[in-house]
Amino acid sequence: MNFNFFFPTRLISGEGCLAANADLLALGRHAMIVTGRSSAKRSGVLDDLLPLLEARGIAYTVFDQITENPPILTCHAGGRLAHEAGADFVIGIGGGSPLDAAKAVAAFAANPDLAPEEIFDAAKRTVPSLPIIAIPTTAGTGSEANPYSILTLPDGLRKKTFTAPESWPKYSFLDPRYTATLPVSSTVSCALDAFAHALESYLSPKSTVVSEQMALFAASRIWPILAERPVEYTPLMREELLYAATAAGIAISITGTGFPHPLGYSLTLLDGIPHGRACAVFDGDYIAYNTRTERGAARLADFAASAGADLDTLIRTLPELSEVDLRFTEEEITERVELIIQAKNYTNSPYVLNRDEIYAIYRAHFAK
Amino acid sequence: MNFNFFFPTRLISGEGCLAANADLLALGRHAMIVTGRSSAKRSGVLDDLLPLLEARGIAYTVFDQITENPPILTCHAGGRLAHEAGADFVIGIGGGSPLDAAKAVAAFAANPDLAPEEIFDAAKRTVPSLPIIAIPTTAGTGSEANPYSILTLPDGLRKKTFTAPESWPKYSFLDPRYTATLPVSSTVSCALDAFAHALESYLSPKSTVVSEQMALFAASRIWPILAERPVEYTPLMREELLYAATAAGIAISITGTGFPHPLGYSLTLLDGIPHGRACAVFDGDYIAYNTRTERGAARLADFAASAGADLDTLIRTLPELSEVDLRFTEEEITERVELIIQAKNYTNSPYVLNRDEIYAIYRAHFAK
Repeated sequence: MNFNFFFPTRLISGEGCLAANADLLALGRHAMIVTGRSSAKRSGVLDDLLPLLEARGIAYTVFDQITENPPILTCHAGGRLAHEAGADFVIGIGGGSPLDAAKAVAAFAANPDLAPEEIFDAAKRTVPSLPIIAIPTTAGTGSEANPYSILTLPDGLRKKTFTAPESWPKYSFLDPRYTATLPVSSTVSCALDAFAHALESYLSPKSTVVSEQMALFAASRIWPILAERPVEYTPLMREELLYAATAAGIAISITGTGFPHPLGYSLTLLDGIPHGRACAVFDGDYIAYNTRTERGAARLADFAASAGADLDTLIRTLPELSEVDLRFTEEEITERVELIIQAKNYTNSPYVLNRDEIYAIYRAHFAK
Repeated sequence: MNFNFFFPTRLISGEGCLAANADLLALGRHAMIVTGRSSAKRSGVLDDLLPLLEARGIAYTVFDQITENPPILTCHAGGRLAHEAGADFVIGIGGGSPLDAAKAVAAFAANPDLAPEEIFDAAKRTVPSLPIIAIPTTAGTGSEANPYSILTLPDGLRKKTFTAPESWPKYSFLDPRYTATLPVSSTVSCALDAFAHALESYLSPKSTVVSEQMALFAASRIWPILAERPVEYTPLMREELLYAATAAGIAISITGTGFPHPLGYSLTLLDGIPHGRACAVFDGDYIAYNTRTERGAARLADFAASAGADLDTLIRTLPELSEVDLRFTEEEITERVELIIQAKNYTNSPYVLNRDEIYAIYRAHFAK
């Protein structure tokens, strides 16, 4: 067993938690608000947030240019804008993309002379990032509960993880109401992402007491909702999904993710498949391969019991829920596999895939 | 559900974790080591710690005067000594008493003009406490994972909780080897304390996602060991008890404790019953009363399932494991009940005891 634990983010939860704890917003005098084109408005966060900032005399600049799989170049532009505006803290609002982007913007804002890809070089980031507040509007990535910022490189073909000690949000506000307007399809995709986090974290060789308990909690709340395939989500479901996704975020903050994540990246970057669905395609393979190991089999039995499902059901249903139906030529398969073959996540699982097995998995799913 | 969470302590676990992370010891230039008369030596912590400090040029003063139910006057003396020695951080080593005392010493050291009972007045503590490192040598109180310091007032008849934002240890080193020399009787008493924390936290109206998961984990590890009543403890049992006690410490850092704790205080202060055993006397009552409420009954079913026991077994066995066999006159009962009747913990449970019920519980256990 391992009980290492470090979690510097303060989580504040519940309906109305932003207004009820608004004095925490005074992290500085000028907030750089990092968000997507519409979700911050649609979710109602901006309507709640801006009057709270104004009432406290806190200036703000809204940067709403963040797209899915946030490009490092957009974050760089946002960071320079924050610097020019004199922002001294960052508020990220949205799904995983704006929250991940907020962490990069906070670093670029503090280091305005940094070239985009220099963000990955700790020696070049001479000034600590601006402090960050996270307000999730989806229940999926867990970015509100970890220091990871997954950025798309300028070639548009690769993702790379940025993290810094200050990338942990100082505060994360978890209000399930802000996820209420998320469409069903996106809700499913996000829930699949969170479920993949819980699954991959629970089997990781780096798992700890806390990561394991958080992963099992997440599984127990997400799977019954996914399995029901609701046509609309009740407030209770929204709450359970949000808190489960945050719990899974804590879990991966400790362990990192396993191989469904890199296997899915090429589908997201080349084929536009949403991240959670792209991971879910490979969750069945992850379970099937890992049952071949002693640790994997034992862990999967616990995990499935917490989820309230048997392993065969999970193996069959997860790719089905992904609703990904792609067919590739051998050349296209090679292009996709070679894009993700260098990832480090393969070793973060009891069963370590080799190159041939990665090809076999891709062919089994996608061969024409 | 509630997912508020704040846990600023960094936990570092495993055999040899102190030496492996010794650079973290350089929190300052002069450590005030706060411990009991013998446990820091017997456990092996001092043998490990002092060379690590010396190798880093860190001076230290050892204050080994902490006794059970640490008197505020002893902590006050320790704080003044730390101030005079020029200590700039505190290392607490031992069971709950030295760790709780370390938090008070850290506050008095930073505020050397404070009178003993002024420690409870935040307005009088004008300087933040010195930073604290905790090294537990028992698996029980969870003091390494919370900011509480339970002090005995100068009258020797009352306990009062001191806490400050800096009372969270900055680092807690969890090495199960340091609990290996703890005698069986003390090990049981400490495990009963940790089990009471898990039980009382899980039912608390203030429970959260994290406190609940930590409480269930603690129950799942502690009960099988308590129920086995081992005549000696294996390293694996020591590890499970230590991590479970820390998990239960996280749980009560969020919820606080319920009524077995105050009910037990008078037995500890007036009759010398170790704290964990004193709580266990009343755990059966706690379970029996709380099954009368809907929340209590539902929670207790989950809790018992995690512990792997049925409720009747818990109700019967916990007081039995306490091995407390006291008989009091009605006058002695009155003395004890009146001592603890003002505690706040009574409301922190689905079933709230009234005065008559507290008397009835005391009479049922102790009437001559």
